[in-house]
Amino acid sequence: MSLGVGVIGAGIMGADHARIIREETADAHLVGVADADLARAERAAAGARAVTDGMALIGAGDVDAVIVASPDPTHAPLTLAAIAAGKPVLCEKPLAVTPEDCLRIAEAEAKAGRKLVHTGFMRRFDPAYGELKAAIDGGGLGPVRLLHCLHRNQYVPGWFQPQMAITNSFVHEIDVCRWLLGAEFVAATVIPSTSDAYDPLGDPLLIVLETDAGALVSTEVSMNAEYGYHVHAEAVCARGTVAMAEPARTLTRTDGARRSGYPVNWIPRFADAYRIQARAWVAAIGQGSVDAQAADVWDGAVATILAEQIVEALRTRRRVALELPPRPQ
Amino acid sequence: MSLGVGVIGAGIMGADHARIIREETADAHLVGVADADLARAERAAAGARAVTDGMALIGAGDVDAVIVASPDPTHAPLTLAAIAAGKPVLCEKPLAVTPEDCLRIAEAEAKAGRKLVHTGFMRRFDPAYGELKAAIDGGGLGPVRLLHCLHRNQYVPGWFQPQMAITNSFVHEIDVCRWLLGAEFVAATVIPSTSDAYDPLGDPLLIVLETDAGALVSTEVSMNAEYGYHVHAEAVCARGTVAMAEPARTLTRTDGARRSGYPVNWIPRFADAYRIQARAWVAAIGQGSVDAQAADVWDGAVATILAEQIVEALRTRRRVALELPPRPQ
Amino acid sequence: MSLGVGVIGAGIMGADHARIIREETADAHLVGVADADLARAERAAAGARAVTDGMALIGAGDVDAVIVASPDPTHAPLTLAAIAAGKPVLCEKPLAVTPEDCLRIAEAEAKAGRKLVHTGFMRRFDPAYGELKAAIDGGGLGPVRLLHCLHRNQYVPGWFQPQMAITNSFVHEIDVCRWLLGAEFVAATVIPSTSDAYDPLGDPLLIVLETDAGALVSTEVSMNAEYGYHVHAEAVCARGTVAMAEPARTLTRTDGARRSGYPVNWIPRFADAYRIQARAWVAAIGQGSVDAQAADVWDGAVATILAEQIVEALRTRRRVALELPPRPQ
Amino acid sequence: MSLGVGVIGAGIMGADHARIIREETADAHLVGVADADLARAERAAAGARAVTDGMALIGAGDVDAVIVASPDPTHAPLTLAAIAAGKPVLCEKPLAVTPEDCLRIAEAEAKAGRKLVHTGFMRRFDPAYGELKAAIDGGGLGPVRLLHCLHRNQYVPGWFQPQMAITNSFVHEIDVCRWLLGAEFVAATVIPSTSDAYDPLGDPLLIVLETDAGALVSTEVSMNAEYGYHVHAEAVCARGTVAMAEPARTLTRTDGARRSGYPVNWIPRFADAYRIQARAWVAAIGQGSVDAQAADVWDGAVATILAEQIVEALRTRRRVALELPPRPQ
Repeated sequence: MSLGVGVIGAGIMGADHARIIREETADAHLVGVADADLARAERAAAGARAVTDGMALIGAGDVDAVIVASPDPTHAPLTLAAIAAGKPVLCEKPLAVTPEDCLRIAEAEAKAGRKLVHTGFMRRFDPAYGELKAAIDGGGLGPVRLLHCLHRNQYVPGWFQPQMAITNSFVHEIDVCRWLLGAEFVAATVIPSTSDAYDPLGDPLLIVLETDAGALVSTEVSMNAEYGYHVHAEAVCARGTVAMAEPARTLTRTDGARRSGYPVNWIPRFADAYRIQARAWVAAIGQGSVDAQAADVWDGAVATILAEQIVEALRTRRRVALELPPRPQ
Repeated sequence: MSLGVGVIGAGIMGADHARIIREETADAHLVGVADADLARAERAAAGARAVTDGMALIGAGDVDAVIVASPDPTHAPLTLAAIAAGKPVLCEKPLAVTPEDCLRIAEAEAKAGRKLVHTGFMRRFDPAYGELKAAIDGGGLGPVRLLHCLHRNQYVPGWFQPQMAITNSFVHEIDVCRWLLGAEFVAATVIPSTSDAYDPLGDPLLIVLETDAGALVSTEVSMNAEYGYHVHAEAVCARGTVAMAEPARTLTRTDGARRSGYPVNWIPRFADAYRIQARAWVAAIGQGSVDAQAADVWDGAVATILAEQIVEALRTRRRVALELPPRPQ
Repeated sequence: MSLGVGVIGAGIMGADHARIIREETADAHLVGVADADLARAERAAAGARAVTDGMALIGAGDVDAVIVASPDPTHAPLTLAAIAAGKPVLCEKPLAVTPEDCLRIAEAEAKAGRKLVHTGFMRRFDPAYGELKAAIDGGGLGPVRLLHCLHRNQYVPGWFQPQMAITNSFVHEIDVCRWLLGAEFVAATVIPSTSDAYDPLGDPLLIVLETDAGALVSTEVSMNAEYGYHVHAEAVCARGTVAMAEPARTLTRTDGARRSGYPVNWIPRFADAYRIQARAWVAAIGQGSVDAQAADVWDGAVATILAEQIVEALRTRRRVALELPPRPQ
Repeated sequence: MSLGVGVIGAGIMGADHARIIREETADAHLVGVADADLARAERAAAGARAVTDGMALIGAGDVDAVIVASPDPTHAPLTLAAIAAGKPVLCEKPLAVTPEDCLRIAEAEAKAGRKLVHTGFMRRFDPAYGELKAAIDGGGLGPVRLLHCLHRNQYVPGWFQPQMAITNSFVHEIDVCRWLLGAEFVAATVIPSTSDAYDPLGDPLLIVLETDAGALVSTEVSMNAEYGYHVHAEAVCARGTVAMAEPARTLTRTDGARRSGYPVNWIPRFADAYRIQARAWVAAIGQGSVDAQAADVWDGAVATILAEQIVEALRTRRRVALELPPRPQ
């Protein structure tokens, strides 16, 4: 009973999703890949069907479930189409670009009467985050008082805008920290560093969120960290702390130093997470639902809704109260 | 074109192989599990066929390839049967208990005229060992002068015999170090620690191998290290060294200390290696061969042949010249 | 030409200063120790003179220089007395409890016409902070954008007040970060964690300072971190970061984990710093001045002045602009 | 009652000893420095007396104690002269170049009727080795089964001979491991790596010593490790292990990697040990003895005696039984 999967979008992420379904996911097979650039779709399909029309792929009879990894503005219409077709969908983040579209998708799923949407916040499946959550939930460390996070990208393109550090990168932190803490955020303060004429972004941002339980999440978001892609978290609890180890497999000793490397971006860093997520997604579809650990449609919506309000905190340089609309039922 | 796999043996390793084929290997499916204990076979089969007769499973028409994970003395007859049936076989280490049986298997495969046997030295597929080998082969560090290895098991049962530290544990080091160095071993010295009345084994053993290129491999083999399962390697080269990092995902700070944990045994430590090995095995079968990175029938034979001679070095407490018979053609 | 030193205060710090002068400082000797508790003074004096009156010790003919390590409110009058006597003084932090007294001391020294006051911010002599500063000043990493600091105390007494986290602990961060960055602070935001009913302090505080160069200093100040005393800093620069290593000398592997310990408080953590500071202080006195690397009278004043304003930022929960009065000439 | 110290030899080590006495040692002062090169003696004396004749310095009335840091062959006559003069002497390793001279010195001290000789095996005062010994002696880890040591030098001069790796470098391991284990060595096996035409030394040596308690000490001695000076030890005990941490103060993250540096040689690595040793030496002289933790005359003799026998093990490539003559009474 192998699940037929269609992947929409054959960029870096879409191609990787297609590869994972083809090579690393039991009980599923790649039916086809859609991309406006047909040659790119063909490369990602690697023998499976390649098409230009994502909507047609959603409608295809041999496609049981869909992965949406196309450009951000297309996420909403494609996800709505998958819901309309009654087909489970793993939608890459963001679920939609605007809060309004996120709510529309959440409403559509609510009307469909069953969970169909898995938002691709893959960090929830990363083994290191999993160990952090287990340590926090285990209770031995006491309540979390403060969560320190680092989100460092090596480089961003010149056209990158400061608010994209929030909407594009920090959304991952919003989701994974909500999940780690089991709490909602109620306030945000954003303080940009402006020391470096070298970096037009005002990079890094220091973002402090407060939870409804009174805990803090303090995150450095660096878009031009240069040395590598580096994600880190440490939960400071009442009886101690738990932190990620730096994920090196080897170290070398040469030229006066001991050194270990960083990945260049999120794909090697989160290779396990993407693979495990795909398996959990397929397994949950077999059960007629969305994986309990995954970001569901509402988690996807919350990330976009809060990101917009946190951009406002950056713009105004003031502490902003964060608010969520009611979840569609 | 999913490969039908039969797993023989439903102990810890057999059950894990069956799970990996079921859950983590695309392009393959579990046809059945054989174990003398039918209930155990059924648990490992998880819905696939469960039988008591491994030979029958090898012969079954829907079994395209076989994994042998039954008790050591059965490896030789089962592997010979798989070769006779023309079916690819992944045989857990040791390939056979005696050098004679190993040679018999190698001859049988040579006569079959194509590579059918993959010996399950899974460390060759471990990402950390892979990075070590890439660093060595890259050449930037210069030739390897010395390889330090640690092989620490948490506990062994009371009936464990000292020579089993070599035939059961150290065989992994024999294989993975031959692979890392691309060299053959020509001499062995074994020095047991006898300081600890607490440990009847004379534990640990210090084993020093010399390669045909003049490099040394120095290995501590501890069977009762107590604190956890710990495998480590550092290659000392002319221009520097390359070593495994300790594979922790998180660390905690409590009670006056920072700490990170060790796995209890090889299964969590080498979970990636087993999974990647299974995929490589299946992919190579699709190409009509054995994976180029895998231990083939000869590598399996060499490990058993050398282990026997190294046991002799332990017994005599003298440097022993190591010799290999000619490889069957 | 051994320098005769009088130490005022025989509590933990005073006793340690006396020991350092006695045992670890060439070119100086301990003349006497003053403490209201004479028995305690005698223990710290270890054979040198013990008295109850600190003022008398300052005036003694064989006392060439003074270390003030008595209760905080006595720092100002004792330091003023030393200046009046024309004797160099190493005053433990805080230089004085109020900004007004700090300015009074700075004015007294200015009138004296030569530098006499060394404020005991010993971290400037810690080898790890020294390496951080050298890396920053070396320039290879580019300008500092953000400095992350941790200041974790194991426990504080029950009578500890939240603002003391700032005036007692965070003052060290104020001084050492000004020194590391060679910049002044212009704004402060303080956000307390309130998640933990267990901790009445609202612990930890997250304190964000902005420098006149646009860089940020983000500090976690935990008074009840439980697991140990832990000070850490990482400078995020344009081309990379430089961070303290955790200062362990050994690690143990037992009971399933690798672990290394934390000091219980600042005395073992900063033992090198205290020793090196004493030597630098004595050497500079030989040159008729205050060590160029030390916190001088103005650095001491700035720490107290800013701490008071940062307490205001905690009270109001708003970003506060920081201001310094003109330095007395 | 400041101790007047004369330093003989103004090379790297002698100059450093002179500096330590001048700057870092309370209760002692530098009287003079002797070196055949008077200008060099003057630089090291930094204002104290500079002479060319070491024997005269030993005899000088204001010299209470002597540090011998002149070329190795002069250690014996100078140390004998100090004993004859009844003056305590800290003799750099080796105590003497030949076993015969070592015994002669031990006999001379025995006849003098009190302990006068402190052999400068400074590692016994290194805080990391101290923590190792405390962990071993504490007993919680159970008996030591195996001690792994690394002794890596960055480079040696072209005229360096293979046996000097033993007599010059490995002697430190002989002494510090005897001290750590509280045991005597009874056998040695030496296996040189010969893989590297690049290195004419046959570098590294792997040296395995067996103690009278049945424990092993396995040491890599690399003379041309290139990347830095690196000393390491891990004691494998019945219930766990204890190891040195790598002694970094900071780490940098740049250019794709996290890195921390190694010292170039033993002087920065063991700066604390040399300083603490000097203080212990001076304090023990005040008590009329040699520091209980220090290597005494016999420890110095044992290191030279065993080194000679271990050179024999290298030459013969056979396991050599180690023997000690009776200690002179």
